Amino acid sequence: MPELRKDPIVGRWVIIATERARRPGNIIDPSEIVREQTQLACPFCEHQEKAVAPEIFAFRGNPQPNGPGWQVRVVPSQNPFLQYENYCQRRGHGLYDVMNAYGTHETVIETPQHIENMADLDLGQIELVVKSYALRCRELSRNPELKFIMAFKNYSRAIPLHFAHTRSQIVATPINPMRAKDKLKGARHYYQYHERCIYCDLIVQELDAKKRIVLETDHFVVITPFASRFPFETWIIPKKHACDFHKGIEGYEGDLARALKSILQKVKIGLRDPEYNFVIHSAPIRKDNGRQWLTIEDDYHWHMEVMPVLTRVAGFEKGTGFYICVIPPEQTAEYLREVKV
Amino acid sequence: MPELRKDPIVGRWVIIATERARRPGNIIDPSEIVREQTQLACPFCEHQEKAVAPEIFAFRGNPQPNGPGWQVRVVPSQNPFLQYENYCQRRGHGLYDVMNAYGTHETVIETPQHIENMADLDLGQIELVVKSYALRCRELSRNPELKFIMAFKNYSRAIPLHFAHTRSQIVATPINPMRAKDKLKGARHYYQYHERCIYCDLIVQELDAKKRIVLETDHFVVITPFASRFPFETWIIPKKHACDFHKGIEGYEGDLARALKSILQKVKIGLRDPEYNFVIHSAPIRKDNGRQWLTIEDDYHWHMEVMPVLTRVAGFEKGTGFYICVIPPEQTAEYLREVKV
Repeated sequence: MPELRKDPIVGRWVIIATERARRPGNIIDPSEIVREQTQLACPFCEHQEKAVAPEIFAFRGNPQPNGPGWQVRVVPSQNPFLQYENYCQRRGHGLYDVMNAYGTHETVIETPQHIENMADLDLGQIELVVKSYALRCRELSRNPELKFIMAFKNYSRAIPLHFAHTRSQIVATPINPMRAKDKLKGARHYYQYHERCIYCDLIVQELDAKKRIVLETDHFVVITPFASRFPFETWIIPKKHACDFHKGIEGYEGDLARALKSILQKVKIGLRDPEYNFVIHSAPIRKDNGRQWLTIEDDYHWHMEVMPVLTRVAGFEKGTGFYICVIPPEQTAEYLREVKV
Repeated sequence: MPELRKDPIVGRWVIIATERARRPGNIIDPSEIVREQTQLACPFCEHQEKAVAPEIFAFRGNPQPNGPGWQVRVVPSQNPFLQYENYCQRRGHGLYDVMNAYGTHETVIETPQHIENMADLDLGQIELVVKSYALRCRELSRNPELKFIMAFKNYSRAIPLHFAHTRSQIVATPINPMRAKDKLKGARHYYQYHERCIYCDLIVQELDAKKRIVLETDHFVVITPFASRFPFETWIIPKKHACDFHKGIEGYEGDLARALKSILQKVKIGLRDPEYNFVIHSAPIRKDNGRQWLTIEDDYHWHMEVMPVLTRVAGFEKGTGFYICVIPPEQTAEYLREVKV
């Protein structure tokens, strides 16, 4: 059974995916996987519904689940690194903390057509994807054993089949990840002094300065962050304050689709279709207000991060968490502003 | 002038390397750099000493600096992301903190011969490299404006010339990086309760359990960490407690060279010569004991991390700091133990 294990020094939880494990040696030759899988038809296309596990949710015209006639489908991940069936039990081994890899891992199939890059979906389709994220996040937030939910996307050429049909993932975990806690603590610290949300203040300062604004829609601002970790990293921040993505997005799904399609198109056209990741940062699920890191409504602000993969993270960054960004965000914002989409 | 900028939410410092900046577009085509540079002779080989900046330090037979007849040379980095000439001035821009990219960035040329992988240096040569790290770390720790020093290595094929001649880097910064603070805080927290060093306890537990031990020398233990972030990640931990690398290593340079060469050879042979990074974690420079995160002698323990690059960090890890390790460390330790070197 896969395990969640905690680093005893820094408190970082990791997933040790025993069931996915291949024997050492295999892992460094992804070409073998490729040869094996490219023989098959794409399991994410319409009419291939039986190739994946039964759907958890779908926007569909045809009311028959797991048949054709759908727009967006959410299914269990084919390679889940967390599983709902595992029992959520914490235990110790001397210094170490461990628990079963309890949680959920879902795949959002963004379109019935064989399209590779989300940038190429039409606006209405991206709006349905955003709505699917929100519906699943709302549903998962009701599970009393889960603490944190993240919708994210890897657009990657590492394994060709993974690349071929645009889809994203939703993971829910029984613990709060280290970086999520850092964000919450930082935002709370600012709020405690100023009694204002740091993201709300940041939007005001950025709209005033203008130089890191990539684009603005009615309800969203897209910026290159002042202290960017990666060149061409962007943040999509809603103008309206809300700590939970699934609540804050209500009524604004179409406008987020516009902002997201626009930035993904700029990245695709301006940077020659690079790989990218995006993540949606939302406040953790709140059930136990006695724990100090848990946010309140006022001090966190959901947002998205979009990160094109153009450089590699090397020893210094891995060792220190201290990133080197080779192009200033003012230059990347200017460049992205000028890309016509 | 390059800048150090602080993320206002999580407090992460990043280097924004304006002077290294290439125009957008260029950055995603490293093949151009390759074509340009592979025309030239390797600037790190013996008799090419004039191709790089004058040496800061060398182990050499010939007493004439910057001439041939050396074993290890330390020179300023050709592409420094921090510079000693910059004035270390902190300032604000509204929400944001910024300072000039003050610091040092040195290159350790590990051999006069054109050898690519440190794994292939002989033991005496690796011992001289370890001694060079320690000498430079000691010297840099006397600078009153520096707070943190890290020696590290990137063995990478990303840019062929960078790959061609084995060398490592030493960076010293005027701030304490985020991950370094996390380690210090975690180790201190443990010490405050137990009045024992967590790394010392970890060695005892691992030697007893045996299953994550890769190898053991007289003075060092090499383990795959319980909560590994990356498959085949290893930690080299000195048995003797010391918080500072440059003090703790004294008298044990040869034994560290044995442990390091052995693990690098196992990685090279067992995993088909993959890219790797290693870093040496040492306590920050201590001048201001009033600041709470600064360590005392007893609660931190220097160590090395060696990280083969076999998998890629994707959206979920970037967003959460929550890693997925696809092979359990017990399996990778067993595999590495069995690789004959």
